[in-house]
Amino acid sequence: MDSSSSKCEKKPERGALGRMTVTYRVRSDAASIEARAEAIAIEQSVETPLAAISDETVLRDILGKVQGIRELEAGLFEVQIGLAVETTGFEAGQLLNMLFGNSSMQEDVTLNDAEIPDIMAARFGGPNVGIAGLRAKCGADTRVFTCAALKPQGLSPKKLASLAARLAAGGIDFIKDDHGIADQAYSPFADRVRACAEAVRRAGSRTLYVPNISGSFDIARGQIALAIEEGVEAVMIPPMILGVSNFHRLVGEFPSMAFFGHPAMAGASRIAPPLLFGKLFRLFGADVVIYPNYGGRFSYSPETSRAVADAARRDWYGLRRCLPCPAGGMTLERAPEILDFYGPDTMLLIGGSLLSERDRLTEATAEFVERVARYFEDKNR
Amino acid sequence: MDSSSSKCEKKPERGALGRMTVTYRVRSDAASIEARAEAIAIEQSVETPLAAISDETVLRDILGKVQGIRELEAGLFEVQIGLAVETTGFEAGQLLNMLFGNSSMQEDVTLNDAEIPDIMAARFGGPNVGIAGLRAKCGADTRVFTCAALKPQGLSPKKLASLAARLAAGGIDFIKDDHGIADQAYSPFADRVRACAEAVRRAGSRTLYVPNISGSFDIARGQIALAIEEGVEAVMIPPMILGVSNFHRLVGEFPSMAFFGHPAMAGASRIAPPLLFGKLFRLFGADVVIYPNYGGRFSYSPETSRAVADAARRDWYGLRRCLPCPAGGMTLERAPEILDFYGPDTMLLIGGSLLSERDRLTEATAEFVERVARYFEDKNR
Repeated sequence: MDSSSSKCEKKPERGALGRMTVTYRVRSDAASIEARAEAIAIEQSVETPLAAISDETVLRDILGKVQGIRELEAGLFEVQIGLAVETTGFEAGQLLNMLFGNSSMQEDVTLNDAEIPDIMAARFGGPNVGIAGLRAKCGADTRVFTCAALKPQGLSPKKLASLAARLAAGGIDFIKDDHGIADQAYSPFADRVRACAEAVRRAGSRTLYVPNISGSFDIARGQIALAIEEGVEAVMIPPMILGVSNFHRLVGEFPSMAFFGHPAMAGASRIAPPLLFGKLFRLFGADVVIYPNYGGRFSYSPETSRAVADAARRDWYGLRRCLPCPAGGMTLERAPEILDFYGPDTMLLIGGSLLSERDRLTEATAEFVERVARYFEDKNR
Repeated sequence: MDSSSSKCEKKPERGALGRMTVTYRVRSDAASIEARAEAIAIEQSVETPLAAISDETVLRDILGKVQGIRELEAGLFEVQIGLAVETTGFEAGQLLNMLFGNSSMQEDVTLNDAEIPDIMAARFGGPNVGIAGLRAKCGADTRVFTCAALKPQGLSPKKLASLAARLAAGGIDFIKDDHGIADQAYSPFADRVRACAEAVRRAGSRTLYVPNISGSFDIARGQIALAIEEGVEAVMIPPMILGVSNFHRLVGEFPSMAFFGHPAMAGASRIAPPLLFGKLFRLFGADVVIYPNYGGRFSYSPETSRAVADAARRDWYGLRRCLPCPAGGMTLERAPEILDFYGPDTMLLIGGSLLSERDRLTEATAEFVERVARYFEDKNR
């Protein structure tokens, strides 16, 4: 392997709008990797044999360029490819398309990382309110945020509202809909959101209700508008189902709203979670990113979990910081361990484990909120 | 393994709106598979420990039910789970969410198939024009359809239009944009579509130009409206990038248009291609489904390729038949083999291999069209 290699992040190369450095991991034998890397560079840019291209500008400015190949272990390579920023049109779906559209169908390739240039960060804009805005909304100066999940789907608006009232009475920061709760006959969106928002308002706490948004862009926009009428200040969206372009547009249309990005349909194994959840969801406007924590129902490692959180909340081109929300089978018992792992700029989401308390729901919520609020204070005493 | 098992397709069970039978493939040891199957049934429905559910209706009608477990080989199981139709709200994104939203993040699970009940077929509606409508548009009574790709991205509208003119002069049925061609500064959508549509009209053939549609739903809707003003009768959309809900809505908003579904971001390894491309894309309205053919740049087997085509064009609840378009590095030389494999209800897409003919582009296109048009006739003589 004589190609250059480096673990450092590369500055985007200049020339027109420059290039993004995109990192793929490729299973290949050593003899084939250079040809395989060239093939990915073509697949993710001009998508045609070079013999079919007569235009010099395309060959110079648009064709993807292999920038480095590094062997990670026998049969596994890290390949860095420079893709022209111009090909993205600064549009979220098209950015994803250029990063991984066709290669997502090649089983030997995963998308590992992308160095996104400052011009792209500025054009996409990132979160509306970020961690600081969430702290202001919740009156939470330095402490960890708490979140509960409203479920199961199948309950009527009235029953969901009753659960919401009891969680809010416990003083939790956020109550988010389960991601399966959409606009179903047994619980239509409008009835459910009106009932739950009212229940939370009446509880008298600062709790924010976070409805799950679904459907096509126009339906989703209508749902958010209805939620705003009910005083809702945050919503949840699964960008990989709604489409990242639509997610990004909604963030722009409702600049005072906080957006929770849900990972449904994100197919963990093909795009590295720190890139997808930590970078791209944040770039497109997630104020909070929900993702599967290590040690729950999903297979993420502690390293992956930490890398998602680091990417979401690190300083990055001046974009607002995005709050990591590790989830997926978290329990009350694990709260201290999770807090030690992530520190205070975190949202602790306890779903089923809290709801399993049933008649003690409000008390258990209050205990959870109290314990979490004091956790770092008690520890530092 | 004492659970029931069957290769036959199950009739959806009654009770409210009944259940879809969804088939997952799960890597597991034999001792754990029953618990793992139960966990998936919970994950894809109520998503909470059963202890948290006090509502009997939810337990009876909404909670997923394991319907069968079958060992396919050591460590690999086929698990059938009945998911309540009601949970989908008859909405495309929510259907995908219920089929695979959270489980897509579990590396031991792939989504293999789903038996979709007739009520869902009727509610979603499927293709606008289907194979019969495409035959009418092209004046192609029984023969194979031909398609070329306009590329590479990076060319100006004028240069793309010049290529389109030469392909149209060769008499090809369809000229589709490359899926990387979006709304970029070097080739804005409006300029490009106007130029290419005019070039194709002027060529005097029956060729149909198929622009690639991108962006959020409202942007995409505007692009299609503009294309219609230019006489365009078919467009291409990548449903996994735009979001299946938005794709489905656009199909409904433009009932005289034919829709090509492009597989970008479909991440081959986690959802079985015959389900995603053959069933779901058709259900949501694809008249043509483009997918990676065996023996090209992608790793699909002949069996997978055939299963996609079979699912797309078989009789299915009276939905219009969807035309399979095997693609991804197909060459002129392979045309006879591909035609023998798929038969006449097929669209043969030759991209770079045709464009590589450069100065002979029109002649090579005409030869290709002629050969394909006569292929089965010559063979049956």
